Amino acid sequence: MAETLRLALDAMGGDRAPEIVVRGADLALERMPDLRFDLVGDEARIAPLVAKTRRLKTTEPAIIHTTEVVPADEKPSTALRTRKQSSMRLAIDRVASGDANGVVSAGNTGALMAMSKLSLRMCPGIKRPAIASFFPTRRGETCMLDLGANLDCDAETLVQFALMGQVFARIVLGLERPTVGLLNVGSEEQKGHEFIREAATTLRDTDLPFEFVGFVEGDDIAGGTVDVVVCDGFTGNVALKTAEGTSRMIAQFLRESFRTSWLSRLGYLLARSSIDQLRKRLDPRRYNGAMFLGLNGVSVKSHGGTDAIGFANAIGVAADLVRHGFVKEVSAELETLSSGTSVDDLNTEALAT
Amino acid sequence: MAETLRLALDAMGGDRAPEIVVRGADLALERMPDLRFDLVGDEARIAPLVAKTRRLKTTEPAIIHTTEVVPADEKPSTALRTRKQSSMRLAIDRVASGDANGVVSAGNTGALMAMSKLSLRMCPGIKRPAIASFFPTRRGETCMLDLGANLDCDAETLVQFALMGQVFARIVLGLERPTVGLLNVGSEEQKGHEFIREAATTLRDTDLPFEFVGFVEGDDIAGGTVDVVVCDGFTGNVALKTAEGTSRMIAQFLRESFRTSWLSRLGYLLARSSIDQLRKRLDPRRYNGAMFLGLNGVSVKSHGGTDAIGFANAIGVAADLVRHGFVKEVSAELETLSSGTSVDDLNTEALAT
Repeated sequence: MAETLRLALDAMGGDRAPEIVVRGADLALERMPDLRFDLVGDEARIAPLVAKTRRLKTTEPAIIHTTEVVPADEKPSTALRTRKQSSMRLAIDRVASGDANGVVSAGNTGALMAMSKLSLRMCPGIKRPAIASFFPTRRGETCMLDLGANLDCDAETLVQFALMGQVFARIVLGLERPTVGLLNVGSEEQKGHEFIREAATTLRDTDLPFEFVGFVEGDDIAGGTVDVVVCDGFTGNVALKTAEGTSRMIAQFLRESFRTSWLSRLGYLLARSSIDQLRKRLDPRRYNGAMFLGLNGVSVKSHGGTDAIGFANAIGVAADLVRHGFVKEVSAELETLSSGTSVDDLNTEALAT
Repeated sequence: MAETLRLALDAMGGDRAPEIVVRGADLALERMPDLRFDLVGDEARIAPLVAKTRRLKTTEPAIIHTTEVVPADEKPSTALRTRKQSSMRLAIDRVASGDANGVVSAGNTGALMAMSKLSLRMCPGIKRPAIASFFPTRRGETCMLDLGANLDCDAETLVQFALMGQVFARIVLGLERPTVGLLNVGSEEQKGHEFIREAATTLRDTDLPFEFVGFVEGDDIAGGTVDVVVCDGFTGNVALKTAEGTSRMIAQFLRESFRTSWLSRLGYLLARSSIDQLRKRLDPRRYNGAMFLGLNGVSVKSHGGTDAIGFANAIGVAADLVRHGFVKEVSAELETLSSGTSVDDLNTEALAT
């Protein structure tokens, strides 16, 4: 646990960079004092901010200077071609070269994914990367993937997502035998798109180190029915944002309700600590940090609009993935599964039956 | 407004039928005393329940006797083939024969859709039916479709859904020029599945009696960004259930929060009327009643687990659709759009540019 971990931070990515990145790194050191950072970006802006920190400045972070930045709305393919000296790209390259153990960026999601894929390459055996994140649920936390890396998925991709998701749940959430479900519109076998039904057949017919429970529905996400929810990137992205939007709507309704009478205002004052507790439980900053799974290295995306607390949480997620050897664990698991029969074979067999 | 409306009710559909159906009809008469009902199902069970009602019994509802019922988990194709004397089918047939103006059932959704399609037929010009419902949002109510009738949609189907959804928003919600958005994973033109981008091109290039605002995302549903959200049935079903699950989770967290200290309990008591108000605002019974749009008749699905209040709301939705001549309005609008160029042509033209 005392091993020093070095993370490369894209200091210029996100709405309030580089401020929240530098302050986030400083905050992260409170919980994880053994972390060390490479700050990649405009030195003239970063250095004065570091000087103002309490902990970060004492760890003597490396500042890797560059003035190029990936614009938030740039197409990933354009960024990939033209932003080779950007803070995002140089931060990722630190991981590829072995100088850093992982990278965190609050910048352009598509560009971060494209650059991470190119620079870190895919984890051997994995076909497509996935974006994964945590959700608060009625029974603890659930991991969900894909949240938007692959809009069109096939059965084999979903099977691999299930595998990566459960490794994540095992080593980061500490679950012994995670439960995994495929997101669908009903729990009956004949429901849903064909590629989802194919993936279910493969998962049912394979000897797995996790429990595949079959299909789950949208309300099972917040219900916490399973530890890992697997779906294509389009559906996952819509579900994630629908849940966020619903939370915000209810929070607004709640605020409005408490303002309707002086009795309610008084009640609010008395119950404030409880309401603050609820707020903390649903705080999006707690769930900040989407992992790019399936790459041959640790790359974490922070929400672009987050603050220093949120960015510190994204750093914490990256540190957890590195510490628990996530990438190696996925490779090892893939090999165990593939010994004898490859995932491809399994899938084809399932289709033939 | 004083015109008598007759609705056929599947008295045996739903978890607590026929009780909630009979009591729901009785409740509906409170708000709409001019309604009349055909109750289809087991007379021996229905008649004693009717005798116990206050209003319903005075309206002398017709009881159409049958003992066959569509099981909740039966495959739609099986139900279609074998349940020709079921309460569901006979209720739908009352509309097809002109004896009733609309049908409401809390039974098997797939069977109700399949039977309604066969018996009522499609609205001329409409390719596929859609399930539509209301959502509470930060700015009033939003209509969303499809919620599960068609898992795989093409561009033309989405364009027709947009058309039907806005007719619904205009005549039932009373909006003059509703705003319509296509659900996607980003607002940029190049995002999302191809059939969604095609539909957007068609909607942008057509002279419409509503405002097409382009793509919206999952958080725009509860955000109330548009009056009508259009998507394929798989995505819509997942989004609907994700929103429901998130609401239930927050309600549970809120209850738990208020129980943490005696101060919070006291606060809860003082703020109770406000919290009850919030509960009412989000009450799923208020939003009960999914419309099958695109059929040549009014068919409304109530949630299977609802109570009498929820069922009365579903009756209210059916009555609204009949009163406002929804089916005729959709046909008229389709014709206006098609005069000169058909929707098919428009779509092909848009694709060619």
